[in-house]
Amino acid sequence: MKNSKLVPYYILGSGSISCLSDLIFRRKSANKDDAALVIIDHFFEGKNILNLDFLAAEDLVMWADTREEPSTDYIDTLIDLVRNKNIQPSVVVGIGGGSTLDIAKAMSVMLTNPGKAQDYQGWDLVKNPPIYKIGIPTIAGTGAEFTRTAVLTGPVKKLGINSDYSVYDQVILDPELLKTVPKEQFVYTAMDCFVHNCESLLGMQNDAMTIALAQKSSDMIKEVFLGDMDYEKLLVASSMGGLAIANSNVGICHPFSYGLGYVLGLHHAFAICVAFNQLGEYYPEVENFRKILKKYHIVLPKVIDNTITDDQLDHMAELTLMNDKPLSNAFGPEWRTVFGKERVIELLKRM
Amino acid sequence: MKNSKLVPYYILGSGSISCLSDLIFRRKSANKDDAALVIIDHFFEGKNILNLDFLAAEDLVMWADTREEPSTDYIDTLIDLVRNKNIQPSVVVGIGGGSTLDIAKAMSVMLTNPGKAQDYQGWDLVKNPPIYKIGIPTIAGTGAEFTRTAVLTGPVKKLGINSDYSVYDQVILDPELLKTVPKEQFVYTAMDCFVHNCESLLGMQNDAMTIALAQKSSDMIKEVFLGDMDYEKLLVASSMGGLAIANSNVGICHPFSYGLGYVLGLHHAFAICVAFNQLGEYYPEVENFRKILKKYHIVLPKVIDNTITDDQLDHMAELTLMNDKPLSNAFGPEWRTVFGKERVIELLKRM
Repeated sequence: MKNSKLVPYYILGSGSISCLSDLIFRRKSANKDDAALVIIDHFFEGKNILNLDFLAAEDLVMWADTREEPSTDYIDTLIDLVRNKNIQPSVVVGIGGGSTLDIAKAMSVMLTNPGKAQDYQGWDLVKNPPIYKIGIPTIAGTGAEFTRTAVLTGPVKKLGINSDYSVYDQVILDPELLKTVPKEQFVYTAMDCFVHNCESLLGMQNDAMTIALAQKSSDMIKEVFLGDMDYEKLLVASSMGGLAIANSNVGICHPFSYGLGYVLGLHHAFAICVAFNQLGEYYPEVENFRKILKKYHIVLPKVIDNTITDDQLDHMAELTLMNDKPLSNAFGPEWRTVFGKERVIELLKRM
Repeated sequence: MKNSKLVPYYILGSGSISCLSDLIFRRKSANKDDAALVIIDHFFEGKNILNLDFLAAEDLVMWADTREEPSTDYIDTLIDLVRNKNIQPSVVVGIGGGSTLDIAKAMSVMLTNPGKAQDYQGWDLVKNPPIYKIGIPTIAGTGAEFTRTAVLTGPVKKLGINSDYSVYDQVILDPELLKTVPKEQFVYTAMDCFVHNCESLLGMQNDAMTIALAQKSSDMIKEVFLGDMDYEKLLVASSMGGLAIANSNVGICHPFSYGLGYVLGLHHAFAICVAFNQLGEYYPEVENFRKILKKYHIVLPKVIDNTITDDQLDHMAELTLMNDKPLSNAFGPEWRTVFGKERVIELLKRM
């Protein structure tokens, strides 16, 4: 039976990021030569949003380039950069969205394990305990702060490092940080959480805990987006959604988003929204999703237009249909009998 | 700001108690002389419910006497028993209700810390890391499996050992175990959780996380008790209630239950039900609570009858009014101006 790993410590509240200096200091105090490695989404570079004046001379700040989803090569490059500086961090901090949080997870693992990041894509392949790590989400909805997956694009496959060793030791949930996010990205990312809640709840691989978490997360997202926005509540909804999906599975929408994302280079959360918008036959919550977009004056563009070739469509359909686990979760193990390529292309054409 | 500790691992599902042997084995394998200390509610003694055949000769089983709430003296006695056997357990297991789970928590701490259990009643007084511990609730509602409190009656006060070191390292949630509980105790204990959810939600010391957890826990308890019973769902509701109350606070009902419990020797969960039943002016959920009792054909007896002396009433009122933190949570720091002894005695007389 599954032994589910939880993040052992979290701090929640406005201004809670101010606790970071003390948390870093306590990890370092045992050995004064220790350094902190702080990985921050490049979005914050040159902006006066995060105060990191407390960092010491030996600490290393890296700005994570998140324009594309993180690759295993990118992790290897960053690890080489750290090793060339001859420091062995005693604490790794990730501050940003899902990509940045995943980069920090992967680095905490790769700093103590030999070989390349691609060697650890899969399940429970990490051997050595990682560096202690702190995750600070600056956007709500990815759930990355509470999951054991560091999603990486590898030379062969897009597949996460899935290990108890990739779970954060400490999470800081500061709702003030959410106020820095541009509107579209803010809504798309929250909808990513809303969608994986729907997929989990209508799937077959869940239990009483994941159901309770996904239901509450979903209810709270509707409350804040259709009622009054409450950033702290949204962060909690995202955390609960992350915990739910970490122990259940996605369904029909995520496979489409992988195809759209890979062939058209769409950002994950945007691709999720484009796909989900056309999956009302499977997910009744598409109705509330559309209400939310309308309230926020967001009109989704059509991404499959007459510039898309038949080859591209075929490729996207193939990539969608490669997702055996999510599609089994949605339709059962015999999913191929009810969900074939023709149907996928038909749906893609509406997106 | 508060750094909230979570149980880092949980296993959920029917039959999950079968994972215990493997979990114990893995903790012991590093040192073959290690022993496991298994503390089980005496209710299970001589009954053929739990299969512990996998335990080795060096392991120690202790049957916890839970007829009275655990005292600091009782912990000290058990610790002496373990020490006299010349074993230093590498894993402590608690199997039972709230009292047993609290005894195991306290013992995991006292096995590695000098002095007596009463020295650690309070907040964050434990210095040395405890023995690794596994908690297995056999009744739903106490939430003890997810909190950092080991409630103990001391020579001076009834006060918990409250420490991150008293949090379980591993919890096993097996709904099959709940089926062994007698009906009244089953309902009273679940109602204890229902009540602390109400107290938390109508109190002032909560945040978006504790609100979400207490709301969901409360909803699920109503669903299983007023709809169809689902033991796994009830265990999850109890876990969420435990997490909520661990990071918020009780209100008016728990102070009454302490007075009733101390003077009349009532069991905690029963005292909670007796008190809550008369607090409808403060808690609208008393209506649903009464529906649940009715559905389960439970009629609460009147405990304050004409055999109770004025001195006893006065003592109960004094004990109720000693609870500054819960009453501040319910009414604000100026609670004494709206909730005095006369009012408390008036309410007690109805119970």
